Amino acid sequence: MMNYRMTAYILGSIAVITAGLMLVPFIMTFGYHEDYASTTFAFGLTIAILLAIGIPCIVKKPKNTHITSSCGFVTVALAWIMMSVVGAVPLCASGVMPDFIDCIFEMVSGFTTTGATVLTDIDGAPNSILFWRSMTHWIGGMGILVFVVALLPKSNPAVVHLMKAEVPGPEFGKLVSKLRFTARILYCIYLAMTVLEIVLLVASPKMNLFDAVIHSMSTAGTGGFSNRGLSVGYYNDAYIDVVITVFMMLFAANFNVFYFLLIGHVSAALRNEELRAMFIIFGAATIGITISLTVENIYENFWVSLRYAAFQTASMMSTTGFATADFNNWPTITHILLLIVMFVGGSAGSTAGGLKVSRIVIGAKSAFAGMKKAYSPRGVFTVKLDGRPVSDELRLSVANYFVAYFFITVVSLVLISVIEPRVPSSLQGVDTGWFVENFSAVATCINNVGPGLGSFGPMYNFAHLSSLSKIVLSFDMLLGRLEIVPIMLMFYPKAWTPAK
Amino acid sequence: MMNYRMTAYILGSIAVITAGLMLVPFIMTFGYHEDYASTTFAFGLTIAILLAIGIPCIVKKPKNTHITSSCGFVTVALAWIMMSVVGAVPLCASGVMPDFIDCIFEMVSGFTTTGATVLTDIDGAPNSILFWRSMTHWIGGMGILVFVVALLPKSNPAVVHLMKAEVPGPEFGKLVSKLRFTARILYCIYLAMTVLEIVLLVASPKMNLFDAVIHSMSTAGTGGFSNRGLSVGYYNDAYIDVVITVFMMLFAANFNVFYFLLIGHVSAALRNEELRAMFIIFGAATIGITISLTVENIYENFWVSLRYAAFQTASMMSTTGFATADFNNWPTITHILLLIVMFVGGSAGSTAGGLKVSRIVIGAKSAFAGMKKAYSPRGVFTVKLDGRPVSDELRLSVANYFVAYFFITVVSLVLISVIEPRVPSSLQGVDTGWFVENFSAVATCINNVGPGLGSFGPMYNFAHLSSLSKIVLSFDMLLGRLEIVPIMLMFYPKAWTPAK
Repeated sequence: MMNYRMTAYILGSIAVITAGLMLVPFIMTFGYHEDYASTTFAFGLTIAILLAIGIPCIVKKPKNTHITSSCGFVTVALAWIMMSVVGAVPLCASGVMPDFIDCIFEMVSGFTTTGATVLTDIDGAPNSILFWRSMTHWIGGMGILVFVVALLPKSNPAVVHLMKAEVPGPEFGKLVSKLRFTARILYCIYLAMTVLEIVLLVASPKMNLFDAVIHSMSTAGTGGFSNRGLSVGYYNDAYIDVVITVFMMLFAANFNVFYFLLIGHVSAALRNEELRAMFIIFGAATIGITISLTVENIYENFWVSLRYAAFQTASMMSTTGFATADFNNWPTITHILLLIVMFVGGSAGSTAGGLKVSRIVIGAKSAFAGMKKAYSPRGVFTVKLDGRPVSDELRLSVANYFVAYFFITVVSLVLISVIEPRVPSSLQGVDTGWFVENFSAVATCINNVGPGLGSFGPMYNFAHLSSLSKIVLSFDMLLGRLEIVPIMLMFYPKAWTPAK
Repeated sequence: MMNYRMTAYILGSIAVITAGLMLVPFIMTFGYHEDYASTTFAFGLTIAILLAIGIPCIVKKPKNTHITSSCGFVTVALAWIMMSVVGAVPLCASGVMPDFIDCIFEMVSGFTTTGATVLTDIDGAPNSILFWRSMTHWIGGMGILVFVVALLPKSNPAVVHLMKAEVPGPEFGKLVSKLRFTARILYCIYLAMTVLEIVLLVASPKMNLFDAVIHSMSTAGTGGFSNRGLSVGYYNDAYIDVVITVFMMLFAANFNVFYFLLIGHVSAALRNEELRAMFIIFGAATIGITISLTVENIYENFWVSLRYAAFQTASMMSTTGFATADFNNWPTITHILLLIVMFVGGSAGSTAGGLKVSRIVIGAKSAFAGMKKAYSPRGVFTVKLDGRPVSDELRLSVANYFVAYFFITVVSLVLISVIEPRVPSSLQGVDTGWFVENFSAVATCINNVGPGLGSFGPMYNFAHLSSLSKIVLSFDMLLGRLEIVPIMLMFYPKAWTPAK
């Protein structure tokens, strides 16, 4: 059931806030001598549109502020679609990307922190546009509604549904009793870590402030848009690689861990089972890929292999999507490992995508408990996470998530394969095989990663797809980022009934 | 906990029964003028070994006949491994396949009704050996322990665990109150349908009795071994194709349906939701593939496309693995659809492999109920199958099965890809890509299908794999046929504790 008045109020607030955030690239269009004079107009126009939509919606606060969980979910889905459509206006109006479907794909990819791009001439694009692209990662990473909640003057119990829909993971846990303080803490940690990364990157002689800001925002949101066509590989610098590898994994960790560290509860932070599992999986995949690269003599020596393996694994597992190597040329076993960590993804309560490590842990423990139950059918086997028992309801909801996730992946693969009958002839030199290429495109989108294999590889882009495929993949990105339910509820007619 | 005395008794009975069944190919070695005189010796030797193992185990019936469910599971796993190893002796001793690992792979593939072969010269092999290969499909299809139970002079409540381990599906339901009567009914239906297929096939002028028996046994077990290198494509006959297509789908249906039809409960038979779902999925995949083949002009016209599409879809979905076309040359979208129906598989309580349609139905309904729960969190949504509610425990066990199944698939894919670094140079013309080929090999084995894609395609075989890969894939076949738990329990040390 929808409280339409409240939905409009929330969407209006988001429009006004987005207008405020867009002032940054708007001002940049004056500072940097932009090649496209039209960028000033493009951002100005969009800000005007946002204010025209937003202000009428927020002048009067609704009397009934109560929203149901399903209304919250649908509102969040609408908010993300609105942001992607309006966020696409500057790209189109500036003439950087003439096709509006392309612009929407790029913005969905930005806000969902996927980082799959259809921009063919990245190095030639105006700075303000490049900045806006990476900024959408930063906004989408922690979530625009979490931002709205953080700005609320006083707590409203209804908004818990908004945060639940936007913060990934099987369960949503508040850090402190008041939700808006939780939201503020999360954004403060997020901002502080982003600034720290900027400082560390600027310390490298190879990176200027603009590049450092762009890459830090993209890392923070685990997005992956770069202002360089060669991505992080452009700098070809071990120090930069290490800094970004570390920060990609940090942003893929549950932010509750940082909060516990901040308030001095080191043991509580280290007890986090998901964190340990994430680093074990990351370590295993990195070692496997390093061995494969060393055996096949792809790089000079073991250490160089380790550097490239760690970066690419962190990039795929944190679902960032930066690249320092064209892993299309790596052995197939590395492709399999990279696809696995893509699906595993980061932690719940992080900015990363994928299925989330905690779901994998719960699923694996659940399957193992099932095995023990086969051994002694009358025994009771509880599944525990972080020492606390996981309810059967949560186990079932995790299982349902797996089923829905794979179902969407398979249906999207079929759709893309029907829509795209052939790889474009100019890319036929890439011999990964059409099946794997299309699968990798769907996988990289639903997991919010960015690059795939073959013609979707790190040195290519998504521009060669038809508009219909771009729409399918845009839905996949939204389904992955908002964890299915909010988007699916939009197609459930009952969810649109007005509340009394 | 193991009742070792009872396990030995059961394994001994199986050895003696297998010796009895092996008399058929043994006698054939005299009747047919075999090229290899050694086949008589080979089968004779194996029968002697089986009797030498079996008779000492069964001379004295154990006093304590009670077995726990875990003992039943482990016994079933041991029985299947024993049958595969002993069944491999004639292949090796006759000189048809000199490598013993190859022979074991072939027999695991036979008993699990997979039908993946390492026999390179099928058309030149002796008839008795070809007969034995297909006979293992027939035995493995309904299950050797179900056969043992059917032969029991009086019912023993303990043996329910044996049948539970061997009859596939999320739940095991007895047809009649006494288990041995259920087992006898199942085998009677099985035999009658096999004979009916033989009669229908022999009616074709292109097929002699031997070929009809071989192909009927392989269809009945949904196995796929043929005595022709070109499989059913050798006959190139529309009538044969149609008969086998229909029977493949019949043997993939729950045998309870046939029982209800037999006792005149037509409405009960038609109410079976799994059956309807199976035919809907089969129909959708067939139509999709037919359209693709027609659009791409692979065959002369729509009807020929339909014939080939229906045969190959039935073959993959029923997990039989016969082929009338080299689908390697079909469009990639058909590969995707064939891989999907492979994983779906047939019905519970049939001879087919795969995840089973009922699990897919429960999983899909469970996910849909989860979506409704997101809409109204306090609502209670029961999942129903055939009008009866599915318990949360069963939903969870289905979910655990999915997780374990995909986990095994992924681990096997990694193992095979590490063991097999390159496609053999002689097959490099096949351009499906190494990733898809290895994935298809694992998928075809765990789902008990038979052929995969690329160098594992219907016109190739598994001979080019290394021994280590063959062992991994043999485990996959056993895990798929016995539905994971019995094989996994073998690796659980506690399961081996002797019962008091």
